[in-house]
Amino acid sequence: MEYQTIKNWKFDDVVQSYSRRDSMLYAIGLGFGTDPLDEAELRFVYEKDLQAVPTMPVVLGNPGMWMRDPRAGIDWVKLVHGEQSLRLHRPLPAEATVVGRTRVTRLVDKGAGKGALLFLERVLSEQGSNERLATLEASLFCRGDGGFGKGDDPPPPPPTVPERAPDAVCEFRTLPQQALIYRLSGDYNPLHVDPAIGKAAGFRQPILHGLCTYGIAGRAVLTTFCGHDATRLSSLAVRFSSPVYPGETIRTEMYRDGDRVLFRSRLLERDIVVLNNGVATLA
Amino acid sequence: MEYQTIKNWKFDDVVQSYSRRDSMLYAIGLGFGTDPLDEAELRFVYEKDLQAVPTMPVVLGNPGMWMRDPRAGIDWVKLVHGEQSLRLHRPLPAEATVVGRTRVTRLVDKGAGKGALLFLERVLSEQGSNERLATLEASLFCRGDGGFGKGDDPPPPPPTVPERAPDAVCEFRTLPQQALIYRLSGDYNPLHVDPAIGKAAGFRQPILHGLCTYGIAGRAVLTTFCGHDATRLSSLAVRFSSPVYPGETIRTEMYRDGDRVLFRSRLLERDIVVLNNGVATLA
Repeated sequence: MEYQTIKNWKFDDVVQSYSRRDSMLYAIGLGFGTDPLDEAELRFVYEKDLQAVPTMPVVLGNPGMWMRDPRAGIDWVKLVHGEQSLRLHRPLPAEATVVGRTRVTRLVDKGAGKGALLFLERVLSEQGSNERLATLEASLFCRGDGGFGKGDDPPPPPPTVPERAPDAVCEFRTLPQQALIYRLSGDYNPLHVDPAIGKAAGFRQPILHGLCTYGIAGRAVLTTFCGHDATRLSSLAVRFSSPVYPGETIRTEMYRDGDRVLFRSRLLERDIVVLNNGVATLA
Repeated sequence: MEYQTIKNWKFDDVVQSYSRRDSMLYAIGLGFGTDPLDEAELRFVYEKDLQAVPTMPVVLGNPGMWMRDPRAGIDWVKLVHGEQSLRLHRPLPAEATVVGRTRVTRLVDKGAGKGALLFLERVLSEQGSNERLATLEASLFCRGDGGFGKGDDPPPPPPTVPERAPDAVCEFRTLPQQALIYRLSGDYNPLHVDPAIGKAAGFRQPILHGLCTYGIAGRAVLTTFCGHDATRLSSLAVRFSSPVYPGETIRTEMYRDGDRVLFRSRLLERDIVVLNNGVATLA
């Protein structure tokens, strides 16, 4: 891995159209509509008064698997998704054509044998008006790289939840086929569907997409603190700490802190924290 | 309703492209992938070696709600789907552009106040080669029509299951959100999602699509008698007898009869037959 090569990586603009059907399918992939008589939830899965789920930008305008380009020099097999954040600049339309523009913002050297942290920013805009819809930041932990010398400083650490009982808890039992549904929103990585590839990666079976767990935590905040109003969630950030197997129950523990909600998510069945350092901002 | 008007109804050709993603979504709408570690089922929900579900023609090349055209003179509010059959002429591709050509084949007068039976045939061909893929026949029971005088003879009655214990039984518990997933394959009738419309139609809640129940019965035959090989199911016919509420368990009772499988489907929870006079042909 060569610092300047990564920092100056040129990404093509990614133009993507999504339909109301795509918005509904993304929502179903996160478990919206599990109670189909809940009229507030129906607004995400039924075209009447349809709202896009506010976390949907994570599946829009994505530059794809550029890290596999040999010129990047990244040991991509050892790469894991570290953190994900999203800020919404205005409510996401239920259907639109959007443009994703990605750049590398930070590359932190943790030392030889210790890996590197790669930070990517993606700005999502509506095509035509060019109005900004959302800004996403992802950090990728490149476990097989590092030791290239001078790098950027790490960002300030994210907040942690307080040492007390949560103000609210939301539990969602994922379906065994949750990853099969979620992947139709665009992340077709076979790690989430192919049993042989799941085993080869060291898991007992294919794992759920980290960004599906992220959206499930977003749904917990939206349900608990936003009255299902998509315009009331203005940002969501998490650190991924462990994978989820489809079928497991995700319990999101939330702490109100002014206009923020701090949270973490754990698995009921294995008592493991899967999302940590969660912060949502309410509008 | 005027006999010659309906018999001579001109349908436009319906051209429709479907993708591998659409094929996977249709399969998930029928419950394929409920056990994501079952490799035979994965062939319908994962793009590696993907097979289209053989009942998918029911959602392709459909002429839509032409019966609502006032020139047809049909009391469409009272119309219910009576029977559905499908014959496959060759295996359905996992992705293709197809053309549906529909015509009225039969219009049976059951008498004034007793309704009419309208039979529609749809031939589905691959665009370009124009090779026939499937022939579908649907009967619609127009409960508010009839009494127009001379009509066609009714078709011969379909077979019934024998009076003995079934040779095989397959149970599938639908998801509460089953109709929400299934409708994304193209039947957006709000009867299947909108609680107010479900109630107005006389149901306690929105009902599952009859053609979803049809596909679930097809899956039972495919699993039990075809070893999950899509090419081994060559026809499937049913009569609809009662609606299913999403969340209920559909038990399909099957009787082997040479290269045919006779079947019916009932609800475990309410002990009601929902599909009757089922016949599948094995290739």
